[in-house]
Amino acid sequence: MFYQDSELQYPVEVEDPNPLFAKMLQQAIGGLEGEMRVAMQYFFQAAAVPDEHAQYREALRDTAAEELGHIEMLATAVRKNLRGAPTSFADAEDGRDFAALAGLHPRQFLSSGLNAMPTDSAGVPFNGAYVVATGNLASDMYANITAESGGRLLATRLYEMTDDPGMEDMLAYLIARDTMHQNQWIAILKDLGDSEEPFDVHPVPDSFPNEAENQEFNYDFMSTNREAESDPGEAWTGGEAPDGKGEFSFINQIELDGQTISIPTPDPGTYNSPKPPQED
Amino acid sequence: MFYQDSELQYPVEVEDPNPLFAKMLQQAIGGLEGEMRVAMQYFFQAAAVPDEHAQYREALRDTAAEELGHIEMLATAVRKNLRGAPTSFADAEDGRDFAALAGLHPRQFLSSGLNAMPTDSAGVPFNGAYVVATGNLASDMYANITAESGGRLLATRLYEMTDDPGMEDMLAYLIARDTMHQNQWIAILKDLGDSEEPFDVHPVPDSFPNEAENQEFNYDFMSTNREAESDPGEAWTGGEAPDGKGEFSFINQIELDGQTISIPTPDPGTYNSPKPPQED
Amino acid sequence: MFYQDSELQYPVEVEDPNPLFAKMLQQAIGGLEGEMRVAMQYFFQAAAVPDEHAQYREALRDTAAEELGHIEMLATAVRKNLRGAPTSFADAEDGRDFAALAGLHPRQFLSSGLNAMPTDSAGVPFNGAYVVATGNLASDMYANITAESGGRLLATRLYEMTDDPGMEDMLAYLIARDTMHQNQWIAILKDLGDSEEPFDVHPVPDSFPNEAENQEFNYDFMSTNREAESDPGEAWTGGEAPDGKGEFSFINQIELDGQTISIPTPDPGTYNSPKPPQED
Amino acid sequence: MFYQDSELQYPVEVEDPNPLFAKMLQQAIGGLEGEMRVAMQYFFQAAAVPDEHAQYREALRDTAAEELGHIEMLATAVRKNLRGAPTSFADAEDGRDFAALAGLHPRQFLSSGLNAMPTDSAGVPFNGAYVVATGNLASDMYANITAESGGRLLATRLYEMTDDPGMEDMLAYLIARDTMHQNQWIAILKDLGDSEEPFDVHPVPDSFPNEAENQEFNYDFMSTNREAESDPGEAWTGGEAPDGKGEFSFINQIELDGQTISIPTPDPGTYNSPKPPQED
Amino acid sequence: MFYQDSELQYPVEVEDPNPLFAKMLQQAIGGLEGEMRVAMQYFFQAAAVPDEHAQYREALRDTAAEELGHIEMLATAVRKNLRGAPTSFADAEDGRDFAALAGLHPRQFLSSGLNAMPTDSAGVPFNGAYVVATGNLASDMYANITAESGGRLLATRLYEMTDDPGMEDMLAYLIARDTMHQNQWIAILKDLGDSEEPFDVHPVPDSFPNEAENQEFNYDFMSTNREAESDPGEAWTGGEAPDGKGEFSFINQIELDGQTISIPTPDPGTYNSPKPPQED
Amino acid sequence: MFYQDSELQYPVEVEDPNPLFAKMLQQAIGGLEGEMRVAMQYFFQAAAVPDEHAQYREALRDTAAEELGHIEMLATAVRKNLRGAPTSFADAEDGRDFAALAGLHPRQFLSSGLNAMPTDSAGVPFNGAYVVATGNLASDMYANITAESGGRLLATRLYEMTDDPGMEDMLAYLIARDTMHQNQWIAILKDLGDSEEPFDVHPVPDSFPNEAENQEFNYDFMSTNREAESDPGEAWTGGEAPDGKGEFSFINQIELDGQTISIPTPDPGTYNSPKPPQED
Repeated sequence: MFYQDSELQYPVEVEDPNPLFAKMLQQAIGGLEGEMRVAMQYFFQAAAVPDEHAQYREALRDTAAEELGHIEMLATAVRKNLRGAPTSFADAEDGRDFAALAGLHPRQFLSSGLNAMPTDSAGVPFNGAYVVATGNLASDMYANITAESGGRLLATRLYEMTDDPGMEDMLAYLIARDTMHQNQWIAILKDLGDSEEPFDVHPVPDSFPNEAENQEFNYDFMSTNREAESDPGEAWTGGEAPDGKGEFSFINQIELDGQTISIPTPDPGTYNSPKPPQED
Repeated sequence: MFYQDSELQYPVEVEDPNPLFAKMLQQAIGGLEGEMRVAMQYFFQAAAVPDEHAQYREALRDTAAEELGHIEMLATAVRKNLRGAPTSFADAEDGRDFAALAGLHPRQFLSSGLNAMPTDSAGVPFNGAYVVATGNLASDMYANITAESGGRLLATRLYEMTDDPGMEDMLAYLIARDTMHQNQWIAILKDLGDSEEPFDVHPVPDSFPNEAENQEFNYDFMSTNREAESDPGEAWTGGEAPDGKGEFSFINQIELDGQTISIPTPDPGTYNSPKPPQED
Repeated sequence: MFYQDSELQYPVEVEDPNPLFAKMLQQAIGGLEGEMRVAMQYFFQAAAVPDEHAQYREALRDTAAEELGHIEMLATAVRKNLRGAPTSFADAEDGRDFAALAGLHPRQFLSSGLNAMPTDSAGVPFNGAYVVATGNLASDMYANITAESGGRLLATRLYEMTDDPGMEDMLAYLIARDTMHQNQWIAILKDLGDSEEPFDVHPVPDSFPNEAENQEFNYDFMSTNREAESDPGEAWTGGEAPDGKGEFSFINQIELDGQTISIPTPDPGTYNSPKPPQED
Repeated sequence: MFYQDSELQYPVEVEDPNPLFAKMLQQAIGGLEGEMRVAMQYFFQAAAVPDEHAQYREALRDTAAEELGHIEMLATAVRKNLRGAPTSFADAEDGRDFAALAGLHPRQFLSSGLNAMPTDSAGVPFNGAYVVATGNLASDMYANITAESGGRLLATRLYEMTDDPGMEDMLAYLIARDTMHQNQWIAILKDLGDSEEPFDVHPVPDSFPNEAENQEFNYDFMSTNREAESDPGEAWTGGEAPDGKGEFSFINQIELDGQTISIPTPDPGTYNSPKPPQED
Repeated sequence: MFYQDSELQYPVEVEDPNPLFAKMLQQAIGGLEGEMRVAMQYFFQAAAVPDEHAQYREALRDTAAEELGHIEMLATAVRKNLRGAPTSFADAEDGRDFAALAGLHPRQFLSSGLNAMPTDSAGVPFNGAYVVATGNLASDMYANITAESGGRLLATRLYEMTDDPGMEDMLAYLIARDTMHQNQWIAILKDLGDSEEPFDVHPVPDSFPNEAENQEFNYDFMSTNREAESDPGEAWTGGEAPDGKGEFSFINQIELDGQTISIPTPDPGTYNSPKPPQED
Repeated sequence: MFYQDSELQYPVEVEDPNPLFAKMLQQAIGGLEGEMRVAMQYFFQAAAVPDEHAQYREALRDTAAEELGHIEMLATAVRKNLRGAPTSFADAEDGRDFAALAGLHPRQFLSSGLNAMPTDSAGVPFNGAYVVATGNLASDMYANITAESGGRLLATRLYEMTDDPGMEDMLAYLIARDTMHQNQWIAILKDLGDSEEPFDVHPVPDSFPNEAENQEFNYDFMSTNREAESDPGEAWTGGEAPDGKGEFSFINQIELDGQTISIPTPDPGTYNSPKPPQED
């Protein structure tokens, strides 16, 4: 179950309200890189973790609830940045106010009355497809490191945009939490294996029997350059692969001898034929 | 530029056509875990890689083109599984044929005449939001390991579903390629750093100045359990963090002293007030 | 069947074209609160109303056709606001024209040549999921009051934005129609019951047998505050409930004794396990 | 802030797992009528409630957290219904198992390894556009009564589908909570006004000045029947309107004298003209 | 304005209700090839037609209203096919009823109580992006021929699926209307030009000045085969082009001498660099 | 299979970077009228073409690969237009820079670090539903002429917007390619028939037996004007239809004698009834 109280995790102050920054902050609420995504992602992942991994389930639930608190902080930041926003063309004939009204996230006024919305910075609604929860903890941990990397990158770019001290302080906190979250998911990734090596659970899913995959092609880097090239000697074209289970090599797609494309005439019932049926 | 020829990378044979498996294969074409996503993801990532990392750009373009070939293979597999599919209720009164017609991906017949479509297995169209390309190579590599983990997991589950020898052979090939792709993106991730350590470029983005983030909260695991708990001694609640830049510790959210939520009366122009304006 | 003529319901004039207001008006065309939504909503609801309620079906069809006329009015308003809009950066070097071009709904020029589009103000296409039609008239009437409340709120905010006399006149008309539509759906809601009381058909659906629902929890307000609280004495924590079928009371979620989460080990065929299968 | 513990609100048992019912339950998780929607809806509404209405804010937050617990219950129900689901065509040659595999929510296996997903019963991802939060509490309360009516209707239909005692027990609980939630939002709606009358805050938004709306058309029922009809004497074509501020009357759209549609030649820069520019 | 009456354009009878055919029919209501799309497409196109083309505007409005009537017919067909549909697993233990329940469009029961919905056959909601209205009548007429071709193709495939006499009769009517609509839009396309030739208004938009386009590449067929090929002598690689304004020729992409890809180092403020800033 | 090299098809230069034009260009990348759509459309269409039409399959694959090259060119144009874009409010206090920041495609900075994205100009992600591939080549060719008409129209409007010599040069090239592509798909359309006449394969699909469609209504233009009108004598209300298989005539919808709408009482299990079950 979930509980709530009326506190924010960290103070949210805005010295100089900026309605355009309110638009930008939406990316961190309802965007692909946002907090609704991570909150729901950890929630759904947790719901699939079996009891033998209960410690990871608890970590996922802990952070799911923490992220709900981040949505609150960001919604507060949006509302404070929208204080006094221009909403009338008559009052914003030209200059900075007119440009601000031109660039407003229109639904922050029209749909929600100067409050945060479950959309991204372009006004695209949050999409459940952002949420990755595969049932496999190793795969999920990569999805989480990815999400927190994208989230931290977004927060640093928002930090770059603003020079409001309150916003910088809030973002410095969120950036710190993303640092932590990246580290904790990596720690769990390593904990899942039998050694300190993070790639001990690779290739994901590691539970698929090795002998069932095609052993001829599983460590070949495939160049698709239209000219057959020779091995450039990169870290991914030779030497031991990071999973410790094979040696990289280099092939050219052009030399593959797969199969020539051939497609038979479709069934008449599809009405795929562009012409009338032939009479005899 | 891109080029093409009329060959498939690897043979695609179906011994016993199964229209329901044709539906399942759509997940690997137009789904979140599918080949359209990785093809477009590597394509857009490559378009942002600067010249000093040209070797990674070439690797991304190589694999983008390879994945286009995988879509072709899967589209072939779909078409072959739909050979002779029941498309008339009169010809499928009951039993297996009726159930197959009940479970058909309806648009594989109605919209495309028994061919593959740019949708997932549920019929949801491919979405550009699946494509992650951040401009930051470390972040992108995590997105790629995630994508290939999800893709390999999907392929193993499809392998579990079928016992058609042709489909098993095709999937064993695709699983092998996903093994390779996981390894090659990890290899690039390690290559990006200055050591063999994959977390040398952490926290992502590593180019944000350390001193600007909130140093008080960047290595604290935050428990949100409604009861204040003590440190459970997990790998993510103490010890050195994987990025080698901090020590994990453990805190309870309940003890944070952020800020009490307080929201002022909105501006009349928002018409947020549920009541008519007060007259004096 | 549906018919048309070449008249608008009400005059639409624009004295001072404003391409940014053309963008805002899109919310009332293709947005969640817009006219495409209500037109389609009343249309689909009508298609489910049985003959014993034919008078409501006629009312729904009447208003569906009326709303189609509102889309026309708004499309006219969009086109008139886009007259002479800046579409060339060379002709809009800076100032108000440059800001207007910066804030333009880009697809109103690029996709439709300075005309209205089936999108909202942010450019997000109309979505069939906005349309609520449940088959149950009481539930549908609430959806309609909600839609008309959101629509009227939107129209008042658009009214706030503009001071163009033509636009004010058009919006004053649309606001009036939303007043009427709210009232007519409430009138039908009351008419559905056996008394003047609007909650006579509650809880929706009222056709579900009372004894089948869990009688222990159906009038308890559940506090989820992390601290067990005592009854605050609000109108929803005590006294007779509005449906006249129960007495409100107050409980704390924390005291519920449901079930501890427990999840068994998944089947190997899911490949959920992050580790290879154990050998003995 | 939000907190969590490892308890479910109410027990969730499944005696006879049914993978098709697992698909149906998704509607109550990620569908328009589902729990993700109400949880997020109450969360975003609360974030806009000013301090003078703090008691409503607390009620919204209380129920937001309660609904998160309902997602958990439903995710548990999905997982338990998927126990032992057929996932291999070889093991489900025909009969009930084959039909179950045909009808499976494909992504419940392929994407999540037999767990719940953030989608509806058709596999369509949850969409932020389901979430209605307008900044106006009266409008929001109607959205909430609508949401809980749709939710209770869905739960009764799910109840109709199943005869598993565990599922019936869980649904009886959720139906009870939907009864309560309908009542509590109605109670708040009434509490918002200055009388016991629920329509005291009508028309929504009641804060828009009456004199600004078009007083000629705000209580006219408009028939759009292609034949001019006379007043049918319904509750919405005459008598006092429910908001107590006007008298219903009846008009025929056909008699309106708005404006004839007229559209000038577009600017050449739109390239709207289907023909080449005329030379002189 | 739009008007309605209580008649269907053409009778809709179902002799043998088939809930799975009800699912298939949804493609013709809310799908890409469906009637909501054409109704809205003709409606939005009409709203952009200037007075000098008023005869085309009237034709578009005529057919927009006609298509609304087709949605009604199809909604009726859906409802009649859902009469007596299995909605309880207890009543559908196995066989045909169980398979029908497995294959049901779940929301036709769960969301709408056995009625039509604004979705396609897979349950994906109607999307405004299906609607093409460009402001240019020649472009719009092609979009319309495309829409009616796709619509007629869909109707023939639905005809193939069913052998219910009522459904065949309804579909034969809809197929006939699609024949007419294809022909009428072609007739308008020809009417737009100054000759009987349909390609007299090509290339679309014909109002763009010829001399401004790149005259070197506008009639070259470009082979992208990875091997430089010679002209295959097809109708599109030589001879006069259909627009009568150029001669086709044949080139190989491989011989183009465009530009080598080169991307400079990004600005530090993007945080695109995967590494920390270098110190000196 | 697909191959790549590191060349662009045509040079892409930007003399005067314009971040707002970078936003506009997104429409040509990930929009309905964009290059991702045509690349994927030709790719999926090709995958359905049977061997007897192999020459069309090769043409589709040739142009699919060419369009991938256009995405590259446009991504390059976006990146070059974003060089030096304002990304900090402190550095863009007012004037042109502030307006540019107000109008920025926010995700081009926040999500991708000043690079192109798989979205349209409004930030809406690319959608697989844009891709039309029906299995019927005649229908597909119309979809392709439509796509290239929309694409060329978009390119001419972008040309209208800019006066940057590099951008004009790139667009002049893309406009030329769209001219060619329109012509080549028309050439294939004509080639599909047995005569030079493009409508020789009409009505699409021409493979449906004529006698099965309703011969009474397949050449009638249907006026839906609310007043029964007489034949206006247009090219689509009389004379031979373009498919050469019928004569146009003119009817009024109002005179149709279809069927009066009648809907029976729904089954109690739907809970559609707004009232409790009646007791006796």
